[in-house]
Amino acid sequence: MTLINGIETDHLPINDRGLQYGDGLFETIEISDGRPVFLDRHLQRLVKGCIALAIPTPDSAILIEEIQRVCRESPQAVLKIIITRGNGGRGYRLPQAVNPTRIISLHPFPEYPADYAEHGINARFCETRLGLNPALAGLKHLNRLEQVLARSEWNNDSCQEGIMQDANGYVIEGTMTNLFYLKNDHLYTSSLQLCGIAGIIRDIVMHLATSRQMPLIEHDYDKAELLSADSVFVCNSVIGIWPIKQLEGVQFAVSQTIKELQRALTDFKTSGQ
Amino acid sequence: MTLINGIETDHLPINDRGLQYGDGLFETIEISDGRPVFLDRHLQRLVKGCIALAIPTPDSAILIEEIQRVCRESPQAVLKIIITRGNGGRGYRLPQAVNPTRIISLHPFPEYPADYAEHGINARFCETRLGLNPALAGLKHLNRLEQVLARSEWNNDSCQEGIMQDANGYVIEGTMTNLFYLKNDHLYTSSLQLCGIAGIIRDIVMHLATSRQMPLIEHDYDKAELLSADSVFVCNSVIGIWPIKQLEGVQFAVSQTIKELQRALTDFKTSGQ
Repeated sequence: MTLINGIETDHLPINDRGLQYGDGLFETIEISDGRPVFLDRHLQRLVKGCIALAIPTPDSAILIEEIQRVCRESPQAVLKIIITRGNGGRGYRLPQAVNPTRIISLHPFPEYPADYAEHGINARFCETRLGLNPALAGLKHLNRLEQVLARSEWNNDSCQEGIMQDANGYVIEGTMTNLFYLKNDHLYTSSLQLCGIAGIIRDIVMHLATSRQMPLIEHDYDKAELLSADSVFVCNSVIGIWPIKQLEGVQFAVSQTIKELQRALTDFKTSGQ
Repeated sequence: MTLINGIETDHLPINDRGLQYGDGLFETIEISDGRPVFLDRHLQRLVKGCIALAIPTPDSAILIEEIQRVCRESPQAVLKIIITRGNGGRGYRLPQAVNPTRIISLHPFPEYPADYAEHGINARFCETRLGLNPALAGLKHLNRLEQVLARSEWNNDSCQEGIMQDANGYVIEGTMTNLFYLKNDHLYTSSLQLCGIAGIIRDIVMHLATSRQMPLIEHDYDKAELLSADSVFVCNSVIGIWPIKQLEGVQFAVSQTIKELQRALTDFKTSGQ
């Protein structure tokens, strides 16, 4: 089932600015036992994104009611919310009156082998770089051609994720994930000041690490620094945490710390926050 | 009238990758006396963009037939063509079989005062910067949030265009135009190697300049260099050439060279090129 502004339809007017310019935001939410996981955090990020792009924030009561309607369809699924700036004439100028579009759709939960979480995945570096723009950095907006191009660089199933660098050569994230590495019991991740998406699971991993007194360092780092790590993992709302076992020919261990963070994430999820 | 894949409708399935990721391209074409101006050049750029994004190129005979059908509606208008990578599942990975979507729509021709072309416009510098990405530079793709944010920086009608710099501080283009400046009878424009849109009128202006033995320099330049110009102008397929008479408090003359390029562009248009 797909709802557009509360109405059951899966077709959108072509003058919607979401199509015309990618003028909008999205959220990808795990539905587990019919319940949207970390919904509060997803809605908070959505509101933050709307404010950053000056899109009127959706009424959260209406949005939650619509999410619940759609979730009833399937207990295990992926829910996608898209908020756009709504209809607008030809031209970049914002419409006088903005009526945002809400699109809520349900998708099958992807069936990944359990082995990915347990023993790790193979990853590669992508050629496609992330452009730098502090005004858009961190936002889960609809301008995703860089990820599309990066993901098109490989098509064999033996590689599960591609790692992206920014225009300056700093390592930022995966095409669909955030990236962390561990070295000497310190946890490192990029700061996302100039590009990248500030993921919900990234936030939670950082919270879980600091609440365990694990030193956490958000900073810019390059490929060589990443490849010198003790262990590496990626995360997002659908996959949770996947260790990387091999990147550009370098092997990494699935460290005890990663196992502990995986368990902590599962506990955090079932604790209802 | 709007045609989507040849069918008269103005609604698109929401799982189209044009909406989901801005995974597509567009063209904005002047319709004059019922005829699409510089159609060959627009279609050539569209094909070039499709190749760059690995989107199967549309059949040009079908596309031209559809454009002609839509053009019959109005002798003076703006035609917009959007080509997307078509429907796709959730996720950045390219679909196994790509069936691109063709959207052809007609819009009213904007009524700009003749004064803009004759005596020039007021322009300003935008705070929003263009991110750097050589893989996307030059393409008229659907990821246009930077232009949307830049255009949202002012809302008064006394300013007609905003000038954008890139992440390194080089001056690139206007929010909806390409930018040229003249100094000591040399014509300058940015090289668009790392960002920006390679406009059809920009190409033609460069052709007209070189065919007049006017020295043309494509290079990176900053704000100070632009403000030291003798005269400045912007151009696109809908406005033609507009001189800038004032930018950030600095006054510019409407030079004889700009007038000559305006006349040459009009001649070039009517000559059927």
